[in-house]
Amino acid sequence: MFSILARDPASRARAGLLRTAHGDVATPVFMPVGTRGSVKALTPDELRAHGAQIILGNTYHLYLQPGHELIARQGGLHRFTGWSGPILTDSGGFQVFSLIHGGIADEIKGRRPQQPGRLSDMVKVTEDAVVFKSYLDGSRHIFTPERSIEVQHHLGADIILCFDELPPYHAGYDYTRESMHRSHRWAARCLEAHRERDPETLPTPDQRLFGIVHGGVFPDLRRASAETIGGMGFDGLCIGGSLGANKAQMYDVVEMTVPHLPDGLARHLLGVGDVDDLIEGVARGIDMFDCVSPTRLGRHGTALVRDPERRWKLNLQNASLREDDSPLQPGCGCTACQSFSRAYLHHLYRAKELLGIRLVSLHNVAFLLTLMADIRAAIVEGRFAALYEAWLGKPLPDLR
Amino acid sequence: MFSILARDPASRARAGLLRTAHGDVATPVFMPVGTRGSVKALTPDELRAHGAQIILGNTYHLYLQPGHELIARQGGLHRFTGWSGPILTDSGGFQVFSLIHGGIADEIKGRRPQQPGRLSDMVKVTEDAVVFKSYLDGSRHIFTPERSIEVQHHLGADIILCFDELPPYHAGYDYTRESMHRSHRWAARCLEAHRERDPETLPTPDQRLFGIVHGGVFPDLRRASAETIGGMGFDGLCIGGSLGANKAQMYDVVEMTVPHLPDGLARHLLGVGDVDDLIEGVARGIDMFDCVSPTRLGRHGTALVRDPERRWKLNLQNASLREDDSPLQPGCGCTACQSFSRAYLHHLYRAKELLGIRLVSLHNVAFLLTLMADIRAAIVEGRFAALYEAWLGKPLPDLR
Repeated sequence: MFSILARDPASRARAGLLRTAHGDVATPVFMPVGTRGSVKALTPDELRAHGAQIILGNTYHLYLQPGHELIARQGGLHRFTGWSGPILTDSGGFQVFSLIHGGIADEIKGRRPQQPGRLSDMVKVTEDAVVFKSYLDGSRHIFTPERSIEVQHHLGADIILCFDELPPYHAGYDYTRESMHRSHRWAARCLEAHRERDPETLPTPDQRLFGIVHGGVFPDLRRASAETIGGMGFDGLCIGGSLGANKAQMYDVVEMTVPHLPDGLARHLLGVGDVDDLIEGVARGIDMFDCVSPTRLGRHGTALVRDPERRWKLNLQNASLREDDSPLQPGCGCTACQSFSRAYLHHLYRAKELLGIRLVSLHNVAFLLTLMADIRAAIVEGRFAALYEAWLGKPLPDLR
Repeated sequence: MFSILARDPASRARAGLLRTAHGDVATPVFMPVGTRGSVKALTPDELRAHGAQIILGNTYHLYLQPGHELIARQGGLHRFTGWSGPILTDSGGFQVFSLIHGGIADEIKGRRPQQPGRLSDMVKVTEDAVVFKSYLDGSRHIFTPERSIEVQHHLGADIILCFDELPPYHAGYDYTRESMHRSHRWAARCLEAHRERDPETLPTPDQRLFGIVHGGVFPDLRRASAETIGGMGFDGLCIGGSLGANKAQMYDVVEMTVPHLPDGLARHLLGVGDVDDLIEGVARGIDMFDCVSPTRLGRHGTALVRDPERRWKLNLQNASLREDDSPLQPGCGCTACQSFSRAYLHHLYRAKELLGIRLVSLHNVAFLLTLMADIRAAIVEGRFAALYEAWLGKPLPDLR
């Protein structure tokens, strides 16, 4: 399902084409996230018009509300949400571990130490299953690898993911290794469950299953997981689990993993979407990214702009924008930049008007989609190193 | 600036054309309200595409935030907000009296008795001015008729309104008469202030000023006010002040006022937008309406539908919509109805997704704009009585 069309000579960057039941996706690609069946505040038509090729839906949220069986009865996620292009659903694993107890997302990302005992209060991992409580009403649910795949079959995304455990960053080597082996066994069960489906009964018969590479920040585990998961016959691969405590460690994790992945499968770095991380990830051989950041930043009044000194972020509440009649990002073709000034958007945020969230969310999504389109063109045209330096202000290191 | 193109033989309904500096407006017309320079959650392009001809901005809100002088420096309300069509601003009077102390809006509309003393704590009316405190920060402000007109000159709407006092429904005959006479004196001051402007310095040199008829629910006062205000040389007229405690009383107020207005001026019934009120208002000779209701209903999860038994309202949270794959209103051409099901919109509200508010707000605005377009066509084609009966389920009374 994946063809590589061009490679950058100075890095691991590559441009490719991913074929799915609902259309082709040019890679490297960023996919906006529609957690509950809606990329927050935006319509499918707007996303398409601003360059979105594929979006991600969260199995955990959709399973709890409105429920995967209802969505299947409504014809699947494409028909239910009105997004007719490719969709990827995650397995529910990340949210099971992150949303139940709030802070676990931070723990997985290494931002704060694990709180002993807290994990086990709300979520229990056995060889067979994960038992967790709903963030909505505290009700008890059980996810197994088979159950996650079944739910994803009902949702009908084009690409579905294996169910995995997400050990926190501070879990240590031994637990990370043990967890990795369990995720490998679960990966085999997911493959089996996927092969046993009856495509005729499903909204999208031709679904593809991606495996997830684990191993935390440990080079030998990442290599072992890459080789194991990479050899199991998946349609594509994700890099999951803890990616370290900071960006440098995340880039290390990618560097210690990618060389051990089969070249011919698409590679998705889960949950990453900062401007520098997208460029650094592509340089290290990543083909697919997803992140809630553009719409989350929009809701919090931050616009993405081409200004590395601000870490590409402009706070719309900033008083300096009060009478700034330039667009958010000069040259940007999005609806927000074509029709509205920074001064007006500043006013909308100050007045708590929903239109501000809507317009800046759209701009932020368009900003990342335009960046990815520029990256694809640069790889095809042999000028990725120049793009890297223009955006990040430093020469492309040797990553081959 | 106003021409009458057709009259319904069985009622006072009329179809006309209002010419403004930013384009023509076919009447009867409903204008969506953009309180703070944004029709909540919607873009100017969407409004245009769904039939909006003219929108209303609130002088009081825009004066406090971001300020009329800033808007003038940004080129006026049209350029600042991106809405290039006609705009009407109110005078600030209604909000001065309603927002400061919350409940006064209800008092003006007669929904609950006045609380003695409460009015005078936060707002003070003298012959010269109204002194009030900002709802944003409690700061003290003074509005005079001249100040309101000056602020509206800076905002640059095509149609601006006289500054008036809004006595509550329960104010009684004597106070309502006294207040009416003061509003008449203020109307003369507004006219004078408007004539003395320097058009060269303003974002919209060719602004038109409408007068406001007062008199509460008292026939002799309404007649006196209609004749006084109607004879002062305004470019159009509004029916303002207390419209009574219920719909029947509001229709009575319109019936006791309209026959005493000059036939050749456009008539705006301020703040009215329920489906039945629009049709009943047109039948009684009203040309212009405005109301926040379509977007407010959208934010609260209510869609307008063609179902008189539900008072044209459908609660999106209703469990019966959970698997209803029909559109909000079959036959409706709006984006929400063309692309999304009731089941999906129900899900969006349950999941508190902003897209739900956005889509249903758009549908509600489009619903009223389509109704008004149907009303205009019916008047021109001599079938307004049939439209009245089809929508309201009863024959058109003799209102000539």
